[in-house]
Amino acid sequence: MELKFADRIGSLQASAIREILKSTADPNVISFAAGNPAPEAFPVKEITEISNRILTQNPISALQYSISEGYTPLRDTLKSYLKQTQHIGSETDDLIIVSGAQQGIELSCKVLCNEGDTIICENPSFVGSLNAFKSYNANLVGIDMDAEGIEPEKLEAALKSNPNTKFIYLIPNFQNPSGKTMSFERRKAVYALAKKYSVLIIEDNPYGDLRFSGEDIPTIKSLDIEGLVIYCGSFSKILSPGMRVGHVTAHKDIIQKIVVVKQVSDVHTNIWSQIICNEFMTKYDLSQHIASLKQIYKHKCNLMLDGIREHFSPKIEHTTPEGGLFLWCTLPEGSGMMEFCRKAVSIQVAVVPGTAFLPSEEYRTTSFRLNFSTPTDEQIIKGIELLGKLTKEMF
Amino acid sequence: MELKFADRIGSLQASAIREILKSTADPNVISFAAGNPAPEAFPVKEITEISNRILTQNPISALQYSISEGYTPLRDTLKSYLKQTQHIGSETDDLIIVSGAQQGIELSCKVLCNEGDTIICENPSFVGSLNAFKSYNANLVGIDMDAEGIEPEKLEAALKSNPNTKFIYLIPNFQNPSGKTMSFERRKAVYALAKKYSVLIIEDNPYGDLRFSGEDIPTIKSLDIEGLVIYCGSFSKILSPGMRVGHVTAHKDIIQKIVVVKQVSDVHTNIWSQIICNEFMTKYDLSQHIASLKQIYKHKCNLMLDGIREHFSPKIEHTTPEGGLFLWCTLPEGSGMMEFCRKAVSIQVAVVPGTAFLPSEEYRTTSFRLNFSTPTDEQIIKGIELLGKLTKEMF
Repeated sequence: MELKFADRIGSLQASAIREILKSTADPNVISFAAGNPAPEAFPVKEITEISNRILTQNPISALQYSISEGYTPLRDTLKSYLKQTQHIGSETDDLIIVSGAQQGIELSCKVLCNEGDTIICENPSFVGSLNAFKSYNANLVGIDMDAEGIEPEKLEAALKSNPNTKFIYLIPNFQNPSGKTMSFERRKAVYALAKKYSVLIIEDNPYGDLRFSGEDIPTIKSLDIEGLVIYCGSFSKILSPGMRVGHVTAHKDIIQKIVVVKQVSDVHTNIWSQIICNEFMTKYDLSQHIASLKQIYKHKCNLMLDGIREHFSPKIEHTTPEGGLFLWCTLPEGSGMMEFCRKAVSIQVAVVPGTAFLPSEEYRTTSFRLNFSTPTDEQIIKGIELLGKLTKEMF
Repeated sequence: MELKFADRIGSLQASAIREILKSTADPNVISFAAGNPAPEAFPVKEITEISNRILTQNPISALQYSISEGYTPLRDTLKSYLKQTQHIGSETDDLIIVSGAQQGIELSCKVLCNEGDTIICENPSFVGSLNAFKSYNANLVGIDMDAEGIEPEKLEAALKSNPNTKFIYLIPNFQNPSGKTMSFERRKAVYALAKKYSVLIIEDNPYGDLRFSGEDIPTIKSLDIEGLVIYCGSFSKILSPGMRVGHVTAHKDIIQKIVVVKQVSDVHTNIWSQIICNEFMTKYDLSQHIASLKQIYKHKCNLMLDGIREHFSPKIEHTTPEGGLFLWCTLPEGSGMMEFCRKAVSIQVAVVPGTAFLPSEEYRTTSFRLNFSTPTDEQIIKGIELLGKLTKEMF
């Protein structure tokens, strides 16, 4: 029999990033294509201690069914942590634990968007979120960014011409893929526009803790008097992505709906890992651990930037991130970016073509993404030198 | 601003089961309303050994990002296990690891069903699956069961009158909630009808390993020459539900689509738990562990059945399950089942009203579900005696 799939998945392809990740299984390829934490960034000793304690003292709590809202002590810990560190969470807000911020974003879209509703996002944006939105047949409209993030005039024009907009999806800190950070003025302007046009904002902040230079900028959620902002956070970049634990803070009416679709999605998030996250936050020094991560990523980012400045053709532009895991290089207008990426693989260096991050096929880019968190120092030095030579040959 | 949610979640309420679970937080209430494995059913010692070994030998493998298809060694182990034990898996099939069978069912619906497509299911059926289907605005048609499962004539009539049927959803072994098992003749008849009408079957088999009396019956998937059956299995009832690890075996074209939507749902299933499942299957005696579980549940089921026979009004019908976690009681036609359930709670015994398991509000039932896996022996004896008195007072 001929298989007929749902219309909604027609536009979905397996993420280009993950396909490239697979091709980089070759150990001879230097991969700048991943988005993994550095292997040295995991607090293995502490996690081992916690895990042993759980399995000795109360193993059933880690193995039995739990509730869809998430482990209550972790929810409470996160609520006070987010309140104290970032002024996130009002009396009308609630918090749910999800299986990584990815699930928070997907479920938010599921409860909010009918097919054909518009979602406005940065152009470029995170491919995992874009595909989640496409999987509900949303209409994606991308807004160009300058050094301060999306431009408010362009955002307002998009809101005017798309009255069916449900929310604006943003990664304000060290954006994936661009590495850019939205200025405070822009955050305020975007929030004001959301209010003016009665749309929600999804603020995706997986990298926010990893600022290694410059000054912290308040989250958009910290400005949220009206209950317009759905804030997604994650343990993936500060503890472990393999555990798949994230969280969503939003107006309690939104969280209540997310709980219902969470229940039909995976019942609840792995409870063992939820307990580990809570124990780490309450019995260990999270801020000290994050400080050590910042050192790791600052070093790796600077190493990559130094290499780019030394080896790349001056015709290649690049961003200078103040945190996170990625930077973004742009080839001269009109150049063959895909050809460049293919040639890079042929000299055993993998980068992600910028096309992977476009809201739809209508958009164009000559950029590519570099990740500096996963490769070793030696790989960064050698890989950037190889890429540099290629840029000088081609441009 | 007034929040407007997607149409698809309009018909969704938080599962009645889980709401009742919350109300049973009162330690004085004897709960027959859950569906949890018995606390003594967890192989804590073995899981502790495995976890220590992973964290000593290769912690990063358990903490880092992984691939959406699932941990390759676990996929391979499951493929040969399912092949050897149940003749499941052909050359055109593939297998994906999911975050519990619930996710396998939800994602199968997501890749297959447009809004308004029909899904045929048993009446009654598992509330978690019914809600997953409703969350994609599917049209649910329930088929009544006799002692052998759904009746083929009624199934064929439903297939004829619903030409937009995408799949038939079935729990052939020790069905949740009814405790019934579909006979081999019926399984063959249902498969033949699926083939005749070009529809797929989702075979949900979370309890299949837990047969404590009678003879094993081949799965529908084992009959699947044409690639029509999507088979969902789970570690929740044999190892640990808190880990959220399940698996789906289906035609590789279907699995490929599920991988894509899995990626946008939660990227991948908790990798630490996937490694634990694989280590347990390959280095410990799974069949011996399952044998011990069967003893536990056989004992508890018999205890409950003995109590019912002794204390219940003879006007109450009940099923006699050959495995699984549940049995199903039916009050006389026309009686107030909800009133009975409410009175039960008032005498501190919780059961799940059968209405929770109906495909839609058009259906009616006077039944309720009893779970025998979670309560202690003492709770079963006392709770059934209390319920029995109530049945005699009311009927």
